[in-house]
Amino acid sequence: MLNDFTFHNPTKIYFGRTAFSHLPEALSAFGPRILLVYGKGAIKRIGLYDLVIRTLSACGKEVYELSGVSPNPRYTEVLSGAEIVREKKIDLILAVGGGSVIDCAKAISVAAYCEGDAWQKYWEELRPLENEVVPVASILTMAGTGSEMNACAVITNEAEGIKEAREFPPEVCPRFSILNPEFTYTVPKYQMASGIFDILSHLMEQYFSDEDDNTSDYLMEGLMESLIRSSRVALREPTNYEARSNIMWCATMAINSVTSVSKTQDWEVHAIEHQLGAYTDCAHGAGLAAISIPYYRHIFRDGLARFVRFATRIFGVSAEGRDPASVAAEGIDRLRDFVIELSLPLSLRDLGATKEMLPRIADTVELGGAYRFLSREEILMILQEAYDAK
Amino acid sequence: MLNDFTFHNPTKIYFGRTAFSHLPEALSAFGPRILLVYGKGAIKRIGLYDLVIRTLSACGKEVYELSGVSPNPRYTEVLSGAEIVREKKIDLILAVGGGSVIDCAKAISVAAYCEGDAWQKYWEELRPLENEVVPVASILTMAGTGSEMNACAVITNEAEGIKEAREFPPEVCPRFSILNPEFTYTVPKYQMASGIFDILSHLMEQYFSDEDDNTSDYLMEGLMESLIRSSRVALREPTNYEARSNIMWCATMAINSVTSVSKTQDWEVHAIEHQLGAYTDCAHGAGLAAISIPYYRHIFRDGLARFVRFATRIFGVSAEGRDPASVAAEGIDRLRDFVIELSLPLSLRDLGATKEMLPRIADTVELGGAYRFLSREEILMILQEAYDAK
Repeated sequence: MLNDFTFHNPTKIYFGRTAFSHLPEALSAFGPRILLVYGKGAIKRIGLYDLVIRTLSACGKEVYELSGVSPNPRYTEVLSGAEIVREKKIDLILAVGGGSVIDCAKAISVAAYCEGDAWQKYWEELRPLENEVVPVASILTMAGTGSEMNACAVITNEAEGIKEAREFPPEVCPRFSILNPEFTYTVPKYQMASGIFDILSHLMEQYFSDEDDNTSDYLMEGLMESLIRSSRVALREPTNYEARSNIMWCATMAINSVTSVSKTQDWEVHAIEHQLGAYTDCAHGAGLAAISIPYYRHIFRDGLARFVRFATRIFGVSAEGRDPASVAAEGIDRLRDFVIELSLPLSLRDLGATKEMLPRIADTVELGGAYRFLSREEILMILQEAYDAK
Repeated sequence: MLNDFTFHNPTKIYFGRTAFSHLPEALSAFGPRILLVYGKGAIKRIGLYDLVIRTLSACGKEVYELSGVSPNPRYTEVLSGAEIVREKKIDLILAVGGGSVIDCAKAISVAAYCEGDAWQKYWEELRPLENEVVPVASILTMAGTGSEMNACAVITNEAEGIKEAREFPPEVCPRFSILNPEFTYTVPKYQMASGIFDILSHLMEQYFSDEDDNTSDYLMEGLMESLIRSSRVALREPTNYEARSNIMWCATMAINSVTSVSKTQDWEVHAIEHQLGAYTDCAHGAGLAAISIPYYRHIFRDGLARFVRFATRIFGVSAEGRDPASVAAEGIDRLRDFVIELSLPLSLRDLGATKEMLPRIADTVELGGAYRFLSREEILMILQEAYDAK
């Protein structure tokens, strides 16, 4: 059954080698006071920082900065940014970096004029957005989270040891995003691979739910196929423009709501990884990869037809004359092979987790699951299998 | 090679059985004076007209009407609507119907405050939009053109005997569109089939260009597969909600720019059909079907690899140990079989064309073609083959 849905995504995308040249035109719709948000210096090493500053200055903008945003952006960083926005009456928050930087910018946007504590209101109690937001825009340097074209912000509250995702209304989407695949060339291979698995996981979290005949599933199969094919090229040739541009666009399309319309969706792998990330600070996609294999092995019998479809259509597993469960299981084996191809670790040990952390992580995971509601004990079992994996 | 692109589609979609219930909320963003645009009465027969009028009135709106819009909307109809917009200071043009009605509403939107002749300026000379536009919204009753989520308007100038398509900037996109698949249940089978081929043609016009590895092509393959599968269900069971909702969403996704990003595109089948439509007033999709078969037979050798991919991935043609040209040709044969499944005519004779019309149609077709630029003589040859087809 196709569920009713509302779809609205107002982000304007400038994509390609010439994308950056649109920045002055895109900026002209906003006032002069810009808060530049970026991470720990990668954009300086590739010369992008200088380019952005020169362009902003040529456009007559007044630039303020929040730098040093963490890979898992912290609520304290959000509060620092929100203070600058209020004090300097910022007109546009321009995030330059990967998904964490853009998430941080969105969180600053909603927190700046929030009455009371934004964390409690919007991430804990999930209350509807009620205050004015400050426009956000982005210049993307890493493909993965898809934050460049959605209204989600994942923030870590280090005081509480919790990482929470929140989807806001469309007005929190970046007003524009600049996507030049060449900006991703210098991303280290491990980060690139982590980003690739993040993209694939976004698709699988939406795909592994329901058993109906739904256009969205065909779109996701197309994206998964394109992503896997281009990833194999990019692993061999990191500066292959065609491959990197397909990966970048797959990342955006995988989680800009185009494919999730009418789907019930799962997101339990992400729920587990967010708590793992809060404890270990591991690369998000690497965490997802290590959790996905045991997680899907636990649930595939509850969504058997869909896992068979995945095995045959995404990994070309032959179903002829075979037991569906063994076809589905082989699909997950192929997914595991892909994790190995990406040189991502299969075990949580290699991601900085300790055996002692596992029960604490399981305690804070939000329980859910599309095919079957998982208990805290099952989550712990999955974490233990992910820990012991070889 | 992926070409650089800009993507921006601001239309808000309300989809499903409950979609109509969002109308009051959607209308609240606009002023009180509404111009209702609709066709020749189908919306009255299904009770939708009364429902819309009651809702508008309950929302305190002042309603003006332009009714009787033709299946190939005429420029004279556009001018009548534009006059009402100016005289009554219309705040929102609400199109209720299929693609022609929505196209007409967009054309009224750009023509109302145009200085000078809008046809000449925007459809003939293709000048950039320079005047204010009036917001447009739609309630869709037929799946096919995709006009509900794009900025295109195809208008026929009957005085000049020319049908022209024009894509405007994103501000001409409907601000919102209400898509309830149940509203399409009463569309006669021939119109449904015509709409289905229109959707498929939109995808093929984008797909049959370039030979690179491009994410957009995988998305289009997903849409083609989903469309063909659901069409077969809907032909047997016109009130199968799952099938009709997939068809409706495929129609929107096929031409809302999501799949065309970075593609060079063809659109020559549409260019030929537009002139055929100006002479015969035949159903658009039916015209496309009759032209597509000879057109693709003429050009497939110039885009052989792509036509082989189409044959194998969309129609499951086996390529093993075979000459690529024969695989590609078999794919076009399967496409012809699908036209027959849809009970659409293969010959232009059955669409009201006469042998005498063909050279005149060829004279007015805008020449183009993605793989190879076609001459007027080739267009005439294709028209003659389409005329003689059995």
